[in-house]
Amino acid sequence: MKRVLRADQVSQSPSVLDQHSHDESYHTPRRPDAVVFPESTEDVVHIMQVSAQFRVPVVPFGVGSALEGHVVPVKGGITVDTSRMNRILEVRPDDFLVKVEPGVTRIELNEALRPYGLFFPVDPGANASLGGMAATNASGTTTVRYGAMKDNVRSLTVVLADGSVIQTASLAAKSSSGYNLTGLFVGSEGTLGVFTEIWLKVVGLPEHIVGARAVFETVSDAVRASTAMVGTGLLVSRVELVSALYIDVFNRLEGTDFPVHPTLFLEFGGTRGAVESSVEMAREIAADEGCQRWTAVEDASERTRLWKVRHEAAHTFMKQFPGYGHMATDVCVPLSKLPGAIANAERLLESEGVRGSMIGHVGDGNFHVSLAVRPGDKGDLERANAVNKGLVEYALSVGGTCTGEHGVGLGKRKYQALEHGNALNVMRTIKSALDPDGRLNPGKLIDA
Amino acid sequence: MKRVLRADQVSQSPSVLDQHSHDESYHTPRRPDAVVFPESTEDVVHIMQVSAQFRVPVVPFGVGSALEGHVVPVKGGITVDTSRMNRILEVRPDDFLVKVEPGVTRIELNEALRPYGLFFPVDPGANASLGGMAATNASGTTTVRYGAMKDNVRSLTVVLADGSVIQTASLAAKSSSGYNLTGLFVGSEGTLGVFTEIWLKVVGLPEHIVGARAVFETVSDAVRASTAMVGTGLLVSRVELVSALYIDVFNRLEGTDFPVHPTLFLEFGGTRGAVESSVEMAREIAADEGCQRWTAVEDASERTRLWKVRHEAAHTFMKQFPGYGHMATDVCVPLSKLPGAIANAERLLESEGVRGSMIGHVGDGNFHVSLAVRPGDKGDLERANAVNKGLVEYALSVGGTCTGEHGVGLGKRKYQALEHGNALNVMRTIKSALDPDGRLNPGKLIDA
Ligand SMILES: Cc1cc2nc3c(=O)[nH]c(=O)nc-3n(C[C@H](O)[C@H](O)[C@H](O)COP(=O)(O)OP(=O)(O)OC[C@H]3O[C@@H](n4cnc5c(N)ncnc54)[C@H](O)[C@@H]3O)c2cc1C
Ligand SMILES: Cc1cc2nc3c(=O)[nH]c(=O)nc-3n(C[C@H](O)[C@H](O)[C@H](O)COP(=O)(O)OP(=O)(O)OC[C@H]3O[C@@H](n4cnc5c(N)ncnc54)[C@H](O)[C@@H]3O)c2cc1C
Repeated sequence: MKRVLRADQVSQSPSVLDQHSHDESYHTPRRPDAVVFPESTEDVVHIMQVSAQFRVPVVPFGVGSALEGHVVPVKGGITVDTSRMNRILEVRPDDFLVKVEPGVTRIELNEALRPYGLFFPVDPGANASLGGMAATNASGTTTVRYGAMKDNVRSLTVVLADGSVIQTASLAAKSSSGYNLTGLFVGSEGTLGVFTEIWLKVVGLPEHIVGARAVFETVSDAVRASTAMVGTGLLVSRVELVSALYIDVFNRLEGTDFPVHPTLFLEFGGTRGAVESSVEMAREIAADEGCQRWTAVEDASERTRLWKVRHEAAHTFMKQFPGYGHMATDVCVPLSKLPGAIANAERLLESEGVRGSMIGHVGDGNFHVSLAVRPGDKGDLERANAVNKGLVEYALSVGGTCTGEHGVGLGKRKYQALEHGNALNVMRTIKSALDPDGRLNPGKLIDA
Repeated sequence: MKRVLRADQVSQSPSVLDQHSHDESYHTPRRPDAVVFPESTEDVVHIMQVSAQFRVPVVPFGVGSALEGHVVPVKGGITVDTSRMNRILEVRPDDFLVKVEPGVTRIELNEALRPYGLFFPVDPGANASLGGMAATNASGTTTVRYGAMKDNVRSLTVVLADGSVIQTASLAAKSSSGYNLTGLFVGSEGTLGVFTEIWLKVVGLPEHIVGARAVFETVSDAVRASTAMVGTGLLVSRVELVSALYIDVFNRLEGTDFPVHPTLFLEFGGTRGAVESSVEMAREIAADEGCQRWTAVEDASERTRLWKVRHEAAHTFMKQFPGYGHMATDVCVPLSKLPGAIANAERLLESEGVRGSMIGHVGDGNFHVSLAVRPGDKGDLERANAVNKGLVEYALSVGGTCTGEHGVGLGKRKYQALEHGNALNVMRTIKSALDPDGRLNPGKLIDA
């Protein structure tokens, strides 16, 4: 490896190996044999050639914020850290496009775009790398309006297992030319190739933004209100549900006195006139569905304050359990099944005697239960797994998925056969056709 | 075949074979050996088993409105006509989902959705089948707002080459579970499997719609105005450019007196207040870019009248050439490259001495030049091909694609290597992994 890269691009120092042994989840860490820091597509090609020659696994690494053990090198090998590939290569305001290296983070990108009046809308909360976001098909609070990574990646430069380099698509806004490789590679979790350049769609910063909070009696009322707002075509750019339990924890830890009820956090963005009419209609819809309290604010810092409960939800919940690991469930169900799925989650927490709490991207039918797991405590892990399994089985039985946004990694492999049936064979066929030696992030996504 | 289907499901009558020998383009027809009319997924499984046993090609057929020879059975075999699989299986208004068989047409679907206050937004002009639309990743006038088929298919049931049946995804609005097979199969032109059931996203009918027409001095002015309207986030649901030449032809044939200038046809949809503010801002943007005349109408029948020039453009153009075949070019380029690409098209028509005219989905950078080709006239075909080639080469040189929406079929295979480079190898690998005998719509999309 040191023959194809500079010495300072290869590390086997224990602290570097440790740092690359885990992501932000409860999964058991394991060190890679070496960590490399490519600075260009050519560097990655060289790394891949070494991997091919010595049949050593390659594990791409962004910032390691994944939640399902995605970057744990379960079979050792080379971890490819993209942090030095962090240049914004081209901003094209007239084409609503930007070209980045994969190590650029979401916040870095948005800072660079602001002077152009543009932003990149996918927001997974964490300040993840765009390579990692593309590789997990990340999404988040803004997906109800702007879609997930698969809707916002225009084209990828990918180094394949054999060291060849492809561009998955042109820069055209739409195309029916050849198979949709961008669609296939987004969400492939490093198992089909390493992304070295990414063209992303960007959008204009909205002229006017309003934040709102709506308190409901029941989760069902809140979900019905959210569905009606989205269905009517209002300019909703975020709609998040926070459970009463989370609000209660927040009140206790932060000394606030928010009503301890299911609460929707909303954001509206667009031209001033359009936003104002959307907010007015949203307030009416909320009232029709039994909203007890509605607060709307325009000012940027007031919006931040209003959204604080939601933004710090996972963090605040975990504060109660210092030293615990975090298991975040991630089912996503058709909208009409969301109240049932949430009720089922509450029953499961109760019956397993587990403390957990819930937030949801309710515009998409996706919600997370946060579970606190003592590292190494078998009982904790078993109970948390039982809750997770119950959630997934319920979601699959109503046409949902085991993971709306976090991805499969290690943790969701056990549900793939149940979710995909025969389609899993097609995925395996594709994996072995494109990575016959199984060198690319082995053990992830595909159970091989 | 008659052992696995009823006699009335299999036809070898000359008129039926002829009807399935061509699509709506200039490509040379060829008859299939037989046409079958499945009525269920099981029927398609049986057909596929026969195809596997006797190594006979299978060519799926919707309504045959494709424009690149997609359904021409160049190696003979069995054409699978989906017209009897035309049931709307399930409408789920609360989930914004509908489940259809592939033979349902776009207009049939929208009629069934209207009572629910919903519609399916992808509109390729022709009354195509939803199976054909999914298989070509169709798009059209509304794509600027609602995306292409790949953005609107939630999940597909597919019969694979070996007769096994998969569902490509769950019904969840988003998922990071496994490879994105829906993304891969949409746009695969019948070369990876036959779709037998399709879950589609649907959206609420807009409360208020305004149609508008804006006349400009130059194509560049019109494109700049369109880009600014979309970039500002106005509620544009359609934005189409019609060239001066088309308007001239229309005036002459229909006795109208529209200004013979590049003209944008626009539609705005959403809640009343939001639409009104969008229309007002659009008018201002148009004026800033030199719009000479702006007309906006609300009433449904007036909107239809206003849009007539655009809707009948291809048809009106071809009326000048009775008995000619229609070659429609289909490049799509990054927005900022559109004025250059259109100017290049005009130069090419001039230099090749070909009569052709242009309409464009300018919100997406996609435009068509209609070319009239006398069937069997080698000179006509050569000149038209020269124009098409010049358009494609220009588009590829500026980061565009050879086909924005019509697909590859037979006609665009010759550009695949130039457009995709190494990525074409990945496409070939996938094709031969999933269809090792090359029985599925052979000779299309992939040059094999
Ligand atoms: C507090 C918190 C909140 C979160 N909220 C969300 C959320 O709302 N939505 C959401 O989607 N996720 C969320 N996540 C999960 C995580 O942030 C996302 O999965 C993110 O996309 C991971 O990016 P990363 O740069 O950290 O990637 P990493 O963790 O470094 O890697 C993730 C995967 O991508 C692969 N990969 C990385 N770079 C490349 C590359 N260049 N080429 C090919 N493969 C590559 C890796 O091999 C791995 O399989 C959250 C995480 C935390 C800690
Ligand atoms: C006047 C006119 C205007 C047009 N405008 C547009 C436009 O604006 N945008 C656009 O995108 N297209 C346009 N087209 C092209 C055409 O309408 C589209 O390509 C349409 O999607 C084809 O649908 P179809 O049912 O006619 O499919 P067919 O022509 O029958 O088949 C098309 C392809 O799909 C495959 N296929 C069909 N059914 C299935 C199935 N069930 N499973 C797997 N594969 C299947 C076929 O094998 C073939 O490869 C236009 C055509 C005409 C004649």
